[in-house]
Amino acid sequence: MYSKSVQKLIDIFSKFPTIGPRTAARFVFYLIDLKDEELDEILNSISAVKRNIKICISCFNPFEGQGMLCEICVNPSRDKSLLCIVAKETDLNSLEKTKKYKGLYFILGGTVSALKKAEVEKLRIKELVAKIKNQPEISEIILALNSNSEGEATTLYLERLLKPYISTNKKITRLGRGLPVGGELEYADEETLSSALESRK
Amino acid sequence: MYSKSVQKLIDIFSKFPTIGPRTAARFVFYLIDLKDEELDEILNSISAVKRNIKICISCFNPFEGQGMLCEICVNPSRDKSLLCIVAKETDLNSLEKTKKYKGLYFILGGTVSALKKAEVEKLRIKELVAKIKNQPEISEIILALNSNSEGEATTLYLERLLKPYISTNKKITRLGRGLPVGGELEYADEETLSSALESRK
Amino acid sequence: MYSKSVQKLIDIFSKFPTIGPRTAARFVFYLIDLKDEELDEILNSISAVKRNIKICISCFNPFEGQGMLCEICVNPSRDKSLLCIVAKETDLNSLEKTKKYKGLYFILGGTVSALKKAEVEKLRIKELVAKIKNQPEISEIILALNSNSEGEATTLYLERLLKPYISTNKKITRLGRGLPVGGELEYADEETLSSALESRK
Amino acid sequence: MYSKSVQKLIDIFSKFPTIGPRTAARFVFYLIDLKDEELDEILNSISAVKRNIKICISCFNPFEGQGMLCEICVNPSRDKSLLCIVAKETDLNSLEKTKKYKGLYFILGGTVSALKKAEVEKLRIKELVAKIKNQPEISEIILALNSNSEGEATTLYLERLLKPYISTNKKITRLGRGLPVGGELEYADEETLSSALESRK
Repeated sequence: MYSKSVQKLIDIFSKFPTIGPRTAARFVFYLIDLKDEELDEILNSISAVKRNIKICISCFNPFEGQGMLCEICVNPSRDKSLLCIVAKETDLNSLEKTKKYKGLYFILGGTVSALKKAEVEKLRIKELVAKIKNQPEISEIILALNSNSEGEATTLYLERLLKPYISTNKKITRLGRGLPVGGELEYADEETLSSALESRK
Repeated sequence: MYSKSVQKLIDIFSKFPTIGPRTAARFVFYLIDLKDEELDEILNSISAVKRNIKICISCFNPFEGQGMLCEICVNPSRDKSLLCIVAKETDLNSLEKTKKYKGLYFILGGTVSALKKAEVEKLRIKELVAKIKNQPEISEIILALNSNSEGEATTLYLERLLKPYISTNKKITRLGRGLPVGGELEYADEETLSSALESRK
Repeated sequence: MYSKSVQKLIDIFSKFPTIGPRTAARFVFYLIDLKDEELDEILNSISAVKRNIKICISCFNPFEGQGMLCEICVNPSRDKSLLCIVAKETDLNSLEKTKKYKGLYFILGGTVSALKKAEVEKLRIKELVAKIKNQPEISEIILALNSNSEGEATTLYLERLLKPYISTNKKITRLGRGLPVGGELEYADEETLSSALESRK
Repeated sequence: MYSKSVQKLIDIFSKFPTIGPRTAARFVFYLIDLKDEELDEILNSISAVKRNIKICISCFNPFEGQGMLCEICVNPSRDKSLLCIVAKETDLNSLEKTKKYKGLYFILGGTVSALKKAEVEKLRIKELVAKIKNQPEISEIILALNSNSEGEATTLYLERLLKPYISTNKKITRLGRGLPVGGELEYADEETLSSALESRK
């Protein structure tokens, strides 16, 4: 129905996270309606991100700046004994916004829905194991993954994987469970309520 | 549009919690379609509840049985130093289902959206204060209210109200916050994530 | 978890249309909290509906009053050449509220999800066929069923069933399709849009 | 929290239709994770659309090809006596998919929520009036706007605007209303049901 160039771009936008063909089509017509200078700004900004952004060799956080390490990893005031493993970049950002965490991060690159080899290989497992081996100063590894089924499967996988590297002065923890802001007892499951009771304060 | 008897019953069902006139009308036609013996069973069951159920004079939990106290309040193995304040009966039941809480309860009878006198008077405030005064064995009062705005307003109100009765060997706590089961970091607010980080284990 | 009488009533309310055990529990505690006279009013209103309401022998609409026929069927100004078949009582009421339909109705008593004998037997099929046979004055049968898959299956079934009784001066129609109030072209399926184009005015 | 280039691109994606800052951030990290050749394909496809797509001077439909007119406007088999006014490009496409409409289109460029001058001026009103004046062969103008409040306000505005150009051999119509596919009588408003009854067939 759409012309060739339009359909090609709809197909491309349909691969963006959360986007289906209907929204993708709206993106294309939005771009067509833009003035030339507005479109150039978009193209330049995409190119700029690709050109300016490097991936931190320590935590895999994208960053802009000098050297091989991101601002968090080079920051001397961050606590190098804490390593927080997150699935993706936006999760790191969510945790940073709380201003409550002063340790370092490691971006795993995704989660696994089942422990299939093909899925696990997409994650940065080798890099994670190497990091834990080479950095004896890490005393706590926080598995900060979603509390849904994929996040749980990944947490279980990582707990098993990292067990050999855990000693008396190194432990693995998970994010605490409880009632979220806005949550109601009536709709909370038993595990959430149990945790909320235990972590009362 | 509906006949008098039907409209009357629609109006009655519309006052049931969560029910609007559309569902209320479906209830009425559901009842009309029932056989006589099925309808009698409903009427008898409603009457039986009213006849058999007493309200516990200590915690205000409805119960069936001998005496003036519910099964929880008469149970000698429950920990009398813990008092958990909940808004309504179903919240008590949600906490009991976790099998993690061994103390006693107090059913407040609702929450307040704002601290208006008329609203506060609907709650069992006098009964709560009397209980706290008369039971020095209580060492922890757990405010187990929803984490939404009404629950928060009620929690703040109770904290202020009960402050005079708190001493070094008596404290007020709240349910812990954190990621609920199924929760995702990306959609969690900063306060929920902060609590989840702090209560990690 | 709940006492016997309470659990019995929860089970009963859980069979009400659209109600699950959680809302059923809230109903029971709502009833327990009512004053005696309020509860009596509910019991009396349910009994009154059962006592006062008769089912119209012609259209199966519940009604209150003298005789064997409902107000619509006895109303001489209604057009006896039009028969509108609806699944349930509330659908009849929805159509009456429009004040655009002046014919008669027939309440089928449900819809079928598949053409299984057991399901079809729950509907008033025999009564419908008898009515069509005995009332030659009917010139149009309107199948006013939902436009979802159950409604469509039932419509197809009725079209096949009633075909033998259709002649040059008797026809079967369906409700028109189109964009509903509030509907958007972007989210409308092709069949809805086709109908909306055809029935433009 | 994000680096400058990343935040710039998040701001740009946040202006895309339906996109908020959270999804915009995911887009940026999606792009960062792509291989160079994948990113180049996106940049090239956006440039190609801008380079190849022209806006039809008659109906304002974006198209790819020779001349000044889109495939629909140059198609001799389309019925030039029918003009269908739509708000946006994707609405035209939705109607084309039905394969039921053989006339021409006019893309208005939006809808108005209120009849403020600033809002109305963003629409192609002058172009529409000129078209109606210059093309006496148009016998029916179909206002194919959403059935929500913005669409209704725009329809009313256009009806008033075009009234002076309507004569005995030129009329204005709207899309028909009715139950959409999947719709249920119980949740349909009275106007939708009235239309569904009137357009029964």
